[in-house]
Amino acid sequence: MKLFKHLKKISTAGLFGSALLLSACASDGLIRGTGDMGIVIERATGSVLVVDNTKDETITRVNGLGDLSHASAVYSRDARYAYVFGRDGGLSKVDILKGELVKRVIQGGNSIGGAISQDGKLVAVSNYEPGGVRVFDAKTLEMVADIPANDGSKTVGLADAPGNVFMVSLWDDGEIWKLDFSKGLTPAITKFKDIGTNPYDALISPDGRYYVAGLFGEDGLAKLDLWNEAKGVTRILDHYGKGEQKLPVYKMPHLEGWAVAGDLMFLPAVGRHELLVLDKNTWKEVGRIPVHGQPIFAMAQPGGKYIWVNFSVPKNDTIQVIDVQQLKIIKTMKPGKGVLHMEFTPRGEKVWMSVRDENRVDIYRTDSFEKVGSIEATKPSGIFFTDRAHKIGL
Amino acid sequence: MKLFKHLKKISTAGLFGSALLLSACASDGLIRGTGDMGIVIERATGSVLVVDNTKDETITRVNGLGDLSHASAVYSRDARYAYVFGRDGGLSKVDILKGELVKRVIQGGNSIGGAISQDGKLVAVSNYEPGGVRVFDAKTLEMVADIPANDGSKTVGLADAPGNVFMVSLWDDGEIWKLDFSKGLTPAITKFKDIGTNPYDALISPDGRYYVAGLFGEDGLAKLDLWNEAKGVTRILDHYGKGEQKLPVYKMPHLEGWAVAGDLMFLPAVGRHELLVLDKNTWKEVGRIPVHGQPIFAMAQPGGKYIWVNFSVPKNDTIQVIDVQQLKIIKTMKPGKGVLHMEFTPRGEKVWMSVRDENRVDIYRTDSFEKVGSIEATKPSGIFFTDRAHKIGL
Repeated sequence: MKLFKHLKKISTAGLFGSALLLSACASDGLIRGTGDMGIVIERATGSVLVVDNTKDETITRVNGLGDLSHASAVYSRDARYAYVFGRDGGLSKVDILKGELVKRVIQGGNSIGGAISQDGKLVAVSNYEPGGVRVFDAKTLEMVADIPANDGSKTVGLADAPGNVFMVSLWDDGEIWKLDFSKGLTPAITKFKDIGTNPYDALISPDGRYYVAGLFGEDGLAKLDLWNEAKGVTRILDHYGKGEQKLPVYKMPHLEGWAVAGDLMFLPAVGRHELLVLDKNTWKEVGRIPVHGQPIFAMAQPGGKYIWVNFSVPKNDTIQVIDVQQLKIIKTMKPGKGVLHMEFTPRGEKVWMSVRDENRVDIYRTDSFEKVGSIEATKPSGIFFTDRAHKIGL
Repeated sequence: MKLFKHLKKISTAGLFGSALLLSACASDGLIRGTGDMGIVIERATGSVLVVDNTKDETITRVNGLGDLSHASAVYSRDARYAYVFGRDGGLSKVDILKGELVKRVIQGGNSIGGAISQDGKLVAVSNYEPGGVRVFDAKTLEMVADIPANDGSKTVGLADAPGNVFMVSLWDDGEIWKLDFSKGLTPAITKFKDIGTNPYDALISPDGRYYVAGLFGEDGLAKLDLWNEAKGVTRILDHYGKGEQKLPVYKMPHLEGWAVAGDLMFLPAVGRHELLVLDKNTWKEVGRIPVHGQPIFAMAQPGGKYIWVNFSVPKNDTIQVIDVQQLKIIKTMKPGKGVLHMEFTPRGEKVWMSVRDENRVDIYRTDSFEKVGSIEATKPSGIFFTDRAHKIGL
């Protein structure tokens, strides 16, 4: 990959096509483990950077992924292919080893996220337009199932669960659906109705047991225990919001991630400048932590005692780090304007941060908070490392 | 890899050297993701099989690893290199992509296990002979630190912890040592003394917080909270064993693995035909589950509600599956004689089992318990998939 490095200085984004890489096909560059790789979404240019989180550098850029102004990604189980879900309904399959766009389909008009099945064979996409969920063969990207929602409801919070199951929430209809593909390509669908008004996102616990949807239209969150489905959906934190003045919501927080440390779980409050702290065992609120702004992501550092939080505009130049034993902010950092996303290295020794308006991804040590690297990126947003391939619900 | 497959039928173990694979160097075979790969230890022949857990097949065999009659392995952070710790003190670095033994050093006389540091740069080995811990550069296998134990005590339960720390227990001396490499190659050593007689193995919790050593010489287990080291080591389950008749111990159980499901933790009892069930939050025993024999491994299925258990001789032809909600055995299987180890695929849809005396590794679905595959292997024991690269304490 020496060639690439040499060219980097004089190149434009468009130069980094697959042709360059293919010419190196017989070289050692493509024979490498994929365990320390990842992608960075470049939201304005429809491109992704393929990155190396051992050397903290960019390997190549892949173009032509369409509108990535809101995008997320999952990985094949061999950690070679990234499936990127774009705002424009595009589903792109990227070969991160060859640095190639393998295939791209426009599967809907406006999509919000996706998931890959436990066995790695199915990729599901949740759509705002036309609503519902569409499911694709992970190899070919051919559509294998189309699951329309009632009246075209927008779907959110799509996540995989054990047993080749996808869980999804219906924004317009206030429902949670379980799509069970364990018996083949025609899913058994279980519908949980009246779960609350306007679920806006959801998470699944790392053990695949709980699916929890945040509600925008009313107080509390909707929780489903997948080990005891017959008990249905129950409300948790139903006091949350009551009697308090609502703040304008600049950006919806993300729930995906399950920020659990010990017995505590940390959730970004909607519209408020605080994190909610729950007891993971009772699902009851045990505290709130005042933070710098409206939190977007609250993420538990792997193997660490810290929760890292970023914020919506106009406070999105800041990161705060919370010690989970003291329940106190122990560090406030200002990486730059537009800190849109963070990703930890798999065992948590470093954290990568997209600083959109500075066109950089900064890399910090998590023990000393020292900045140890930085890579150039055009309006970077989501960062996705390949260890996600092996995790439930990510 | 077509060539390899064709040859497989007529070959002997020795034929599968690196030369064959190197000749295919320019082919697509070596350009692949490493997320769905792994190795199987062949304990009698000093070899490992490199395997693919998507296709459920063998890719190649690597020979020349010495005495693997008791062996374990860890992975580089790029999931390309396996470090194999052999009984004879050998430390072998295997390139699983090229199917090559990259390097092998005899670092001690009798070794029992090893670990890789959080940053992936250091590989540590715990020794019975000459005792102590030796630490090697992960790239070159050059020794970078030699940490003798008091009077040459055997060391056991070596595990990595966050902050480039290795934890280890001293069998002869009843101590736990923390070896902190965060500041460089001369570790800061913290010694916890009088933790109990003859710690025989240990585990670290997946969040890197707790280090727990089993005691062979007295009742209970020794627990250290690494977030609150000043509180020292405390005893848990100190009633465990008291007033009960000891059974002969055919084989020491392994603790590595942290079988946690929900709030419960499952530990194999030493010498007894039962699993101990602990409340993970209080560390108190909440029950025991009678099982078929002396348990060796009790492993939580990822994303599942089951604990899988194998047994020591003479009951080592059996596997039992425990439902963690009912705390009951729901399945007893007889895969064959010498079921030495199990490994789950990263998201838990399948489990691989070494059936030593049948020279097979069998592959089962975890939802239906249906056997879906089998590969030939010579006296297989430990199975290690590459997702371990991304986990603390494995």
